[in-house]
Amino acid sequence: MRIDNLQYANWSEKIFRQMREGGVDAVHVTIAYHENFRETVLNIEQWNRWFEQYPQLIMHGRYATDVKLARETGRTAIFFGLQNPSPIEDDIGLVEILHTLGIRFMQLTYNNQSLLATGCYETEDPGITRMGKQVINEMNRVGLVVDMSHSADRSTIEAADLSARPIAITHANPYTWSPALRNKKDDVIRAVTENGGMLGFSLYPHHLKNKTACTAGDFCQMIARTADKFGTEHLGLGSDLCQDQPDSIVEWMRVGRWSKTIDYGEGSADQPGFPPMPEWFRDNRDFGNIEDGLRAVGMNAAEVDGIMGNNWYRFYTDNFGPVAN
Amino acid sequence: MRIDNLQYANWSEKIFRQMREGGVDAVHVTIAYHENFRETVLNIEQWNRWFEQYPQLIMHGRYATDVKLARETGRTAIFFGLQNPSPIEDDIGLVEILHTLGIRFMQLTYNNQSLLATGCYETEDPGITRMGKQVINEMNRVGLVVDMSHSADRSTIEAADLSARPIAITHANPYTWSPALRNKKDDVIRAVTENGGMLGFSLYPHHLKNKTACTAGDFCQMIARTADKFGTEHLGLGSDLCQDQPDSIVEWMRVGRWSKTIDYGEGSADQPGFPPMPEWFRDNRDFGNIEDGLRAVGMNAAEVDGIMGNNWYRFYTDNFGPVAN
Repeated sequence: MRIDNLQYANWSEKIFRQMREGGVDAVHVTIAYHENFRETVLNIEQWNRWFEQYPQLIMHGRYATDVKLARETGRTAIFFGLQNPSPIEDDIGLVEILHTLGIRFMQLTYNNQSLLATGCYETEDPGITRMGKQVINEMNRVGLVVDMSHSADRSTIEAADLSARPIAITHANPYTWSPALRNKKDDVIRAVTENGGMLGFSLYPHHLKNKTACTAGDFCQMIARTADKFGTEHLGLGSDLCQDQPDSIVEWMRVGRWSKTIDYGEGSADQPGFPPMPEWFRDNRDFGNIEDGLRAVGMNAAEVDGIMGNNWYRFYTDNFGPVAN
Repeated sequence: MRIDNLQYANWSEKIFRQMREGGVDAVHVTIAYHENFRETVLNIEQWNRWFEQYPQLIMHGRYATDVKLARETGRTAIFFGLQNPSPIEDDIGLVEILHTLGIRFMQLTYNNQSLLATGCYETEDPGITRMGKQVINEMNRVGLVVDMSHSADRSTIEAADLSARPIAITHANPYTWSPALRNKKDDVIRAVTENGGMLGFSLYPHHLKNKTACTAGDFCQMIARTADKFGTEHLGLGSDLCQDQPDSIVEWMRVGRWSKTIDYGEGSADQPGFPPMPEWFRDNRDFGNIEDGLRAVGMNAAEVDGIMGNNWYRFYTDNFGPVAN
């Protein structure tokens, strides 16, 4: 299995064909950043249109078995996720509704304080809110995975502990390797992985050591070292590929409708847009470079397969539906 | 199988228990009369709550196989339907979204002109609209059944002809038996049944000969005569049971938010509320009386089973998903 557990590209037939060229069996795609419920449904409608238009290339993924079906039929299974709880508004009943519509991951926060938890750009992190506790329980009940990629440390550790089921950091790297605000300190990664959760390694240049200049060797060494510390089985990929997006999209991600002045997030006034990807990972066709790199740093076949997709596959199998009785 | 293909009661544990007492394996319940999309989702959320609260009594029905599962586990499968296309607003993409959320029947109109077709209370019926044609195609594609119970004659006949899949009149009786505005003339019933569609017999007193005073014998005689004319296999029940509803609900059905002055629909200023049900069909516990009545008018066992649920079951099997390739 080859699974990329986070992308937000400017979707097109070209990109779907590149997924097939790269042998990608499943991709978790972001459906919403700051959208409310109705706007999120419009985004799902757009995906339904693509599923109808490109049935030979992609299919809607709802459960792990769909990854298998996609693989057997030469397609890529597309799983939906939210980078913010804005789509559930202030209505816990929308957790089940959105799960029924195929949502499988939801971040409890993007960069700011949400109704549920605290984002990594806030100065104070008071932890999971009253509504946050209720929503975690409801997400556990229906099989919607808690994603804390953009959340602050205390909130993340509390979410890992409060959640009865494993949670995920779908796209981030260890802070010890590259001290970006969005990368995760060891105690955060430990809290998530100890509870059976997953860390997906990001290829977004702001999360990489030396950014765009990061080498495949450095990236794969970092994975091997993280595996030594936390166990290979908790690790996978979440590339954060934002292919073909105009700069207006990075602005939408960063300020949505919450601010009238620009916030550069991981960028700066000098570099407000998307940074260029490293040359060894331009797009979906380049997953083979990572696989080769993992072998080159001495991981064995089962470990490499785990990182490339089998670990996410196992996680999907266990966490996308109600708990079996 | 015992299936009632239309109810809109004031749902409660009491009513769910009565469904079990009456051996009702499936009920098609109305989810919306005039609600927009977001309000319809709130209504589905309320049902999700009931499914969680009463798992021993009811379950969400999505496909015909769920009727079997409900029967085997001693529960009633609840199928969702809309009496108006207001929940899709002006957005054809919501057809698939609502199907994914479990909607299986949608009336193209309630009593008035809609964006799609003409309701039976309008004076002019120009037939299926431009959007109506598109929406019928989309409903056919995903497996959402066109219901014309409250539509005007020309619109209904056109819908039956335009639809590539069978349509339904879920709750009405023959006009020749009881000339109510909502009952259906023979050419309308013929257009629907000729194309493989279904007619569900209503027990709403305004649709019965002699209203509340109608006898079980009269009702079952009418069914037997309709079977002679159009074929038993196209017939079932759609009781239109509105048990325990306050009069404010009949007002909501009739005027929603479209009028500031009251419209009495099938009632009148003297009798604005719900009329009392006939004493032989008070609620879900009384389906046995209809079964007995059908036998008494000489229908054979297979015919009786067909009317009581097997015909709807076959229709559910064929029409609730995409057409098999």
